[in-house]
Amino acid sequence: MKATGIIVEYNPFHNGHLLHLQEARKRTKADVIIAVMSGSFLQRGEPALLPKWERAQMAIDAGVDLIVELPFSFATQQAAIFANGAVEILDALGVQSLFFGSENGDAQTFSKVAKLITEQSAQFKAIIRRFLDNKTNSYASAWHAAINELAPDLTLDLAQPNNILGFHYTLAVIEQKKRIEIATMPRQSAAYHEQKPTHQSIASATSIRSMLLANDWKSVRQYVPGTTLTILQEYRETHSFITWQDFWPLLKYQLVITPTKQLQNIRGISEGIENRLQQAGIRATNFDEFLKHATTKRYSDSRIKRTSLQVLAKQTSPKENYIRLLGMSAIGQQYLRQVKKDITLPLISTASKASPTLLNNDIRATKLYSLAPTLENQFLRDFHTPPYRKKP
Amino acid sequence: MKATGIIVEYNPFHNGHLLHLQEARKRTKADVIIAVMSGSFLQRGEPALLPKWERAQMAIDAGVDLIVELPFSFATQQAAIFANGAVEILDALGVQSLFFGSENGDAQTFSKVAKLITEQSAQFKAIIRRFLDNKTNSYASAWHAAINELAPDLTLDLAQPNNILGFHYTLAVIEQKKRIEIATMPRQSAAYHEQKPTHQSIASATSIRSMLLANDWKSVRQYVPGTTLTILQEYRETHSFITWQDFWPLLKYQLVITPTKQLQNIRGISEGIENRLQQAGIRATNFDEFLKHATTKRYSDSRIKRTSLQVLAKQTSPKENYIRLLGMSAIGQQYLRQVKKDITLPLISTASKASPTLLNNDIRATKLYSLAPTLENQFLRDFHTPPYRKKP
Repeated sequence: MKATGIIVEYNPFHNGHLLHLQEARKRTKADVIIAVMSGSFLQRGEPALLPKWERAQMAIDAGVDLIVELPFSFATQQAAIFANGAVEILDALGVQSLFFGSENGDAQTFSKVAKLITEQSAQFKAIIRRFLDNKTNSYASAWHAAINELAPDLTLDLAQPNNILGFHYTLAVIEQKKRIEIATMPRQSAAYHEQKPTHQSIASATSIRSMLLANDWKSVRQYVPGTTLTILQEYRETHSFITWQDFWPLLKYQLVITPTKQLQNIRGISEGIENRLQQAGIRATNFDEFLKHATTKRYSDSRIKRTSLQVLAKQTSPKENYIRLLGMSAIGQQYLRQVKKDITLPLISTASKASPTLLNNDIRATKLYSLAPTLENQFLRDFHTPPYRKKP
Repeated sequence: MKATGIIVEYNPFHNGHLLHLQEARKRTKADVIIAVMSGSFLQRGEPALLPKWERAQMAIDAGVDLIVELPFSFATQQAAIFANGAVEILDALGVQSLFFGSENGDAQTFSKVAKLITEQSAQFKAIIRRFLDNKTNSYASAWHAAINELAPDLTLDLAQPNNILGFHYTLAVIEQKKRIEIATMPRQSAAYHEQKPTHQSIASATSIRSMLLANDWKSVRQYVPGTTLTILQEYRETHSFITWQDFWPLLKYQLVITPTKQLQNIRGISEGIENRLQQAGIRATNFDEFLKHATTKRYSDSRIKRTSLQVLAKQTSPKENYIRLLGMSAIGQQYLRQVKKDITLPLISTASKASPTLLNNDIRATKLYSLAPTLENQFLRDFHTPPYRKKP
């Protein structure tokens, strides 16, 4: 069976994702689609709107064959680390292709740029350093500028969020020397950050989240598959959607009570960002205010959120990678049986049976997520829930 | 001028305290009454119902001449440490007498028992250890039993809360070799833990707190001086009273997210109590539930609350003592000028001008207290507030 990997957050799963999924299957002639998904917390340093179990079910019900969790240590980090973790998992699961949506839409361009950077790594790093010496540059803008300087004729605009991710996926495949084919399609409609939908059936996840938080189900219904809608509605009947605001009192407490020296041991804390976070924490009375106080040109919104999340989750050191199974279709299950003996990373079906040392960081992240008031009764859910199976 | 010291919490100041204050002045023939008061958090491991500034004002308005804060490191500890810190401060301020209320009411008995224990210290400790080997005994009950065994003819009932405190004050005076005279009066009416008042004008602080939390001002008015009532009412117009419930989400978070090994570094954590706290923290959905789950015969309610407070405030090591001035009358001010040059501990009038190293633990405690939602706008109050002076 031919497997194709996709890297997702599904926050929540919508029509754009469905299109991406169908195209992945068609364009790479895949028998099996394997998705690696962020768990409770996402790459932009935010909590997911609803738990990973509901999101995994959306994916399987909409046609994904196998969905596994990207561990917290990778999922909540900058694009390079995020991509490295996800590619490692997909390769361990034996995918032949990696498919992603991008503003650029041309796989060749991604491969060329990634190869160039790998070959001229020292030179590239020197350019990055030079750009970062200008204190107003963020990491992302330094990368962008460095690539433009090194390969001015390769038109890959790394200011575009999906190009950045796709580029890092490609780079991870090359750096890890994986034999995975890169495939991409141009993204349809709906710019990433757009708050308002621009197309009849496709809207960005950001705008769908706004609709959900505003309880505007009439609009939501237009942009998500029926399977997603059902899961969202069932969830919302008994729970609220989760946002940073749920964790703001805890973040403020942690920033206020932790000695600055202790903050310096936390992953992602460097260059005095800890002082910035603490000062903003003391001044602010809600999370949006905090972000406004803490963000600068150099420290993007995402950087502040990611670092705050590490502070909140008391993350200190990255852990080894592993495969946490969240859900599967009949075909996914069949595929898993077939490749099981060749899987090169630990495979975990139920957390309560796995090594606590391995899961340490994710157990902490799960506990943290469960502190959102609406999840009060789900504290141990993550330890005992078996992977979701599609009803036949 | 002759100064007498009293050791108080004033949570809040009531008619019983007024009586105690008047008797202290009369019976010890004092020109100046100096009170050492717990700050934001109290000896039983609880937050004070309202900030120390309001409580200091109550004291000065009712006739105390000088009120200083007992630092967090002493104020929130078991009776022996609490007493040691307070006696050290009173002695540094030059008091000739120490006056307290007690169920026993006879200063001679306190002195005799304290001397006996000091003289037979090794023997006493051996008895304590023996009682503690029985895992169902608490520290308090082991002390009580040990004293009964060593001095069966001295009728000092250390199961009584005010006897325990008075005994530790006396012991601290003897152990620190201070030249301070001990004086006590029998406590009037209102048993310490009583929820319902038993006397026409005197009720326990516990029952007055219940009335305040129930907004029962008609009852409150009967049991507190007019000066206290005004301060309480003014405070309540713009704020809520503060309880453990305000800090419960933060405690739960800290218990859930902190690795057990890290909890073991916190002051007061021993004998595996950290596991008990974490398990209770995961199960409970509010502070009362948590207490119910965590408390045993060996780990009293107060022990659990005190330890939880250390976890919450991230206290690791005790600091040296100092005198933080909270308020003074004209006479108090005059007295302070007179003794200033002889004071043997650092004297702090405004926190923002003091050494942060010295104040470290109390700054953290103040920040923690200010995280109570109702105090949102008071975050920096403690750093800039000058001592309260009685309006002439």
